[in-house]
Amino acid sequence: MAKKVTKGALDDIRKKNKRLDKQTTDLIKNTAQLINAKILLGKKPEIKLPVRSLSNVSYSIRKGYLEIGAQKKARTLTVNTVKTFAQTLRLMSLSKELIETSDFATKRDAYYQSKNWGDAMFKEQTESDAVMDDIEALFSVDSVSREQLRFVPDEHGGAVAGELIVHDPDMETGQVEIIDCTRFGSGAYSIPSSVEHLSFETKARFILAIETGGMFQRLQSHKFWKKANCILVSMSGVPTRSTRRFIRRLSDQARIPVYAFVDCDPYGISNIYRTLKVGSGNAAHINQFFCVPQAHFLGVTPQDIKDYKLPTHPLKDVDIKRAKDALKNDPFFKEHKPWRKAIELLLKMGVRAEQQALAKWGLNYVLDEYLPAKLKNTKVFLP
Amino acid sequence: MAKKVTKGALDDIRKKNKRLDKQTTDLIKNTAQLINAKILLGKKPEIKLPVRSLSNVSYSIRKGYLEIGAQKKARTLTVNTVKTFAQTLRLMSLSKELIETSDFATKRDAYYQSKNWGDAMFKEQTESDAVMDDIEALFSVDSVSREQLRFVPDEHGGAVAGELIVHDPDMETGQVEIIDCTRFGSGAYSIPSSVEHLSFETKARFILAIETGGMFQRLQSHKFWKKANCILVSMSGVPTRSTRRFIRRLSDQARIPVYAFVDCDPYGISNIYRTLKVGSGNAAHINQFFCVPQAHFLGVTPQDIKDYKLPTHPLKDVDIKRAKDALKNDPFFKEHKPWRKAIELLLKMGVRAEQQALAKWGLNYVLDEYLPAKLKNTKVFLP
Repeated sequence: MAKKVTKGALDDIRKKNKRLDKQTTDLIKNTAQLINAKILLGKKPEIKLPVRSLSNVSYSIRKGYLEIGAQKKARTLTVNTVKTFAQTLRLMSLSKELIETSDFATKRDAYYQSKNWGDAMFKEQTESDAVMDDIEALFSVDSVSREQLRFVPDEHGGAVAGELIVHDPDMETGQVEIIDCTRFGSGAYSIPSSVEHLSFETKARFILAIETGGMFQRLQSHKFWKKANCILVSMSGVPTRSTRRFIRRLSDQARIPVYAFVDCDPYGISNIYRTLKVGSGNAAHINQFFCVPQAHFLGVTPQDIKDYKLPTHPLKDVDIKRAKDALKNDPFFKEHKPWRKAIELLLKMGVRAEQQALAKWGLNYVLDEYLPAKLKNTKVFLP
Repeated sequence: MAKKVTKGALDDIRKKNKRLDKQTTDLIKNTAQLINAKILLGKKPEIKLPVRSLSNVSYSIRKGYLEIGAQKKARTLTVNTVKTFAQTLRLMSLSKELIETSDFATKRDAYYQSKNWGDAMFKEQTESDAVMDDIEALFSVDSVSREQLRFVPDEHGGAVAGELIVHDPDMETGQVEIIDCTRFGSGAYSIPSSVEHLSFETKARFILAIETGGMFQRLQSHKFWKKANCILVSMSGVPTRSTRRFIRRLSDQARIPVYAFVDCDPYGISNIYRTLKVGSGNAAHINQFFCVPQAHFLGVTPQDIKDYKLPTHPLKDVDIKRAKDALKNDPFFKEHKPWRKAIELLLKMGVRAEQQALAKWGLNYVLDEYLPAKLKNTKVFLP
C-alpha cells in the first residue's frame, strides 16, 4: 500500500481543497454582508432561494441531468419568518465555522448543535433538514455543494474494489493517505461520508456500478477487476449521496465511463439507474453534483432475459405502475427511444429478472461469459 | 500497507482453513453415507433436524448466548417429503462442491442454481432459504457454521477502522493480503460477506461497536482509535451476520472486550445490543457463532441522559411496547438486574436520546469528553 506520490501532486490536492474552501466561505460572507447592508439601510433583508419542486425541473440530453430551473422564492425577514430566517443564518455560520476548523457535521449533528441556540433552536430534525435543503439549493446556484459546506450525509457510501488508488488528505495534518483498492483481499474500501477531498489515480477502463452486495462479492472475490481492468463499486440498492458523488468525481477525473449492472426490473431501471445517471426530480438542485451523465446501462436488459433464458418472476403491480409511470412522466425515459422500447418489452413480457439469475448457468457464468460478452460491445448499452 | 508476516504464520492460517474444510466435507459425506446405508438396508432414510422455535431456546449467563435446545424433528423420506428431502441433499452437495472449488454462494445464488435441478428445482427463494436454515441448524450441532458450508450472506458487513491488521488469504492462490486498518484516511475497511478465512493482528485494547454511520465517521475522521488504542466498527443499525461474526472472531482471537455505543432507546438496547451480545431467539441455532458474549454496554445509558443533560424525544408507543416486552419476556434482560433497573428508569423518564445528541455540547464533545470519561471506568458498563 505504500505507494509514492510526488510532493507536487499532493500540494496540488491541498491547494485545490483550500481554494474550494475559500470560495465557499467567501460566498457565505457575501450572503451575510448583503443581509447586513440591507438592515443598515433600514430595509427588510431577504434571501432568494431556488424553488425546490417538480414544476421547476427540466431535462436535456446535452446537460445530462434533471436540472433545477430559474424560479426563486424570497425569504423576507418578517415577524412570521424571523425564526427560520435566524436559523438559516446560524446554519450558514455553523458551516463557516466547520470549514475554518476542518470539521464536519451530519444533518443530525447540526440539529443537535442548535439545542444551544436559545430561541433559534430547532424543535424537530425535519425543521433543520428543510432549512439545510434551502441552504444547499441556495449555494448550488454557485456550484457549491452541501459537502463543501461541510454538511455530510449520515449514511456511509458503498464498497469499492479494483484498479484504483485513492488519495485521502488528513483533514488535520494534511498528510495524504494512499489507498490501493487492489489490496483488500475479499474485503473492500468503504467510501467515506464525504468525498470532496479525495483524488484518484487509475488506469482502469471503466467503473462497474453493481446493485447487490452478493454480486459485488462474487466479482471481487474472483478479482474480476483484474481481468477486465476496471473498478467495482457496490451500490446496495439506490446509491447513497456519497456513493454517487464518489462515482461522479472518479469518472470525471479519470475520464472513464460508468456501466451500471442492476436487476432487470422497474426498480433497478427507473430508481437505481435513473437516479445514478440523471439524479432525481425531487432534489434537482443537487443533481449537478451527484448525477453521473457518463453512465450507461450494461444490464440486465429485458432483451437479456430472452437471450440468456433467465429464470424470471412475474412483474408485481407496483412494478407495472412504476414502469408505466416512467414511460408517461419521466423526462429522462421520454427523451430516449431505446429506453421506451426496452420498458415496453418488459411490460409485454410481464416478467422481471435479478442479476443473480445468471447463476442458473453456473455461479461464475456472470464473470466467465456474460460480462465479457457484454463488454465486447459497449455501444449497444442502453443510454 | 506492505507489512511483513512470517511465512510460518501464513502457513498456520492456510492449514487451519484446510482443516476446517475437511471437517465440513467429512460431515457432509457422513450424513450422505448414513442415508445411503439406510436405503441399502431397505429402510426409510431420515435426517434429524434441530427444532428451530422459541420453545427450544434457553439462556444462561455462563454460556453467554441464547442457545438452541436438544429438541429434534425427523425429516423422513416419504411420498410427501421426497422433494424437500432431495432438495436438502442437493443443497448439501452444492456446499461440498463449493468447498472443493474454493467458491461460495449467497442464498440467492443457491436458489438460482436450483433452476437446473429438474424436479428438485425451488419455486420460490423462501423455499430454498428454509431448507438452507435447516441445513445450517443440522450442522450447527457439530459447530459448523453456514459460512463454513460456503453459503454467505447477500449483504455486506459494516465498516472498520483503527488499530488492526487483517490477514486475508486469497481463495484461489492462497496468497495472503495484509490489510492495515490505520491506513484508510477518512474511508474504512468494508467487511466481506464471509469472514471465516480472516485472521487478525492487533494490540488494540478494545473494539468499539457503533450504531450510526455518522458517529463512526466522526470518530474515524478524528482518529479516535489512535488516542484510545482501539478498533472502530460501524454497525449501521442491527449488525449484519458478517459484522457480528467479524467482531466475534476478532474479539475471540485478540482476547479484547467489545464495547457497544448505541442510541439510548429500546431499539438500540434490545434489538441492536442484545442481538450483538447474545444473538436472537428466532435463529438460536446460529448464536454460538454470531453472538459476542464479551460485549458490554458503554452507552448511551438512561443514566447518561440525566448526567449529560442530553436533548431527548418522548418514547413512542412502539418503544414502550418493546421495553415492556424486554422486561417481561426476554431471558437476557430478565437475568440481569442492572438491565432491568436501566430499562425501568428509561420507562419512568419516558424519553429516549440518540448518541448524536451529545453534539449539543459541541461536535467533538463525544471524543474529547464523553468517551474518555466513560472508558476510565469500564466496570460500571451495563452487562
